[in-house]
Amino acid sequence: MLTLFHHPLVASCRFVRLVFGEFGEELALIEEKPWVRRKEFLSLNPAGSLPVLLAEGDAAIVGATVIAEYLDETRGAIKRERRLFAENPFARAEARRLVDWYLGKTDAEVTKHLARERAFKPMMPREQGGGSPDAQAIRVARANLKPHMKYTNWLAGTRDWLAGETLSYADLAAAGSLSVLDYLGEIDWSDYPAARDWYVRIKSRPSFRPLLADRVSGLPPVSHYADLDF
Amino acid sequence: MLTLFHHPLVASCRFVRLVFGEFGEELALIEEKPWVRRKEFLSLNPAGSLPVLLAEGDAAIVGATVIAEYLDETRGAIKRERRLFAENPFARAEARRLVDWYLGKTDAEVTKHLARERAFKPMMPREQGGGSPDAQAIRVARANLKPHMKYTNWLAGTRDWLAGETLSYADLAAAGSLSVLDYLGEIDWSDYPAARDWYVRIKSRPSFRPLLADRVSGLPPVSHYADLDF
Repeated sequence: MLTLFHHPLVASCRFVRLVFGEFGEELALIEEKPWVRRKEFLSLNPAGSLPVLLAEGDAAIVGATVIAEYLDETRGAIKRERRLFAENPFARAEARRLVDWYLGKTDAEVTKHLARERAFKPMMPREQGGGSPDAQAIRVARANLKPHMKYTNWLAGTRDWLAGETLSYADLAAAGSLSVLDYLGEIDWSDYPAARDWYVRIKSRPSFRPLLADRVSGLPPVSHYADLDF
Repeated sequence: MLTLFHHPLVASCRFVRLVFGEFGEELALIEEKPWVRRKEFLSLNPAGSLPVLLAEGDAAIVGATVIAEYLDETRGAIKRERRLFAENPFARAEARRLVDWYLGKTDAEVTKHLARERAFKPMMPREQGGGSPDAQAIRVARANLKPHMKYTNWLAGTRDWLAGETLSYADLAAAGSLSVLDYLGEIDWSDYPAARDWYVRIKSRPSFRPLLADRVSGLPPVSHYADLDF
């Protein structure tokens, strides 16, 4: 069984867990606080960022998209209809564009700020950046969330799955990001009916079950977080 | 011939130009000011980010790493010894980690701030964010540059090329990022002899020649920028 260094409120870590779930492969988890630059962890990944996968032979594979490509090369390519990438290079590019959108753009504009201000700062020692949430940062992130939800709603309303006809890495990246925001109660799904329908489908998959059991100490999820019919 | 929407002082755009150069394939360039959210450009890439490749059939391929994977699938895989990815999945993961390092981490901590403050802001209308450079942002970015140069120096001193035994996407990503900083005169190469030797080798490649001719209006490069023996 491979091991993932992760944190439950980091979107790109959730993405990797969903990928393993879809491939039906068990994964050992080690929770790493993203603000603690642990020496042993830095020796695996000098960037200090999450996620890091300890793959075969304890080789460290660093970063969500790098892990996704590695898994596609070593697992996905032989999974046939359960592969999370299309065969066509243009369709693959579209899935990769959306993975970058949700794990890059959505994270940088919305998710990481809300996770940091609302979940991490109260846990962090003051000398590592802990303290009271920054109300202005929360306001900006919440305003930024709207176009991301509108775009997700548009994608979900015009395609079977976010990148096209089949479930792909794009859906799992979006689910990783939006499920962190949903845990924090930041999404009013009633404003985005097509995105909501898509999220119900993703949330009902067996791969999603471990994520619904995630709990961060001192910050329980919003009441509907684990409901499949929310 | 394919077309790239790019800007000469955006590291990830330089990376894509180097990849085309290494594959010996011509590329038409359209300069896009990254701060102008042009309607026609947003219809190609709703994120508004650079680079965007108009590939076969004018399909838009969005983002440097997505373009690199697309080119590997459609060109690299048949280039054999000129392929910019190793065959081994672990070696590919290492190259991808470093591409993310230079186009993600180095850009976010150093390159994009120095390009914005020193090159873009003086060109930008005030209502789009133009104005005087922020001296504090420049100071922070310059301090951040040191560990990136040290790390590059360490990689270059312990490996033939940055990701291992052969030239790979990792070298071209590092060259894209560091050449923007070199244009701006931000790198004191004498402090980093192994990185300097590596940069001399990269800079002497035919693929690099078009980058040495880049000029940004109102901001000429540092005097040694185009010297192969600097």
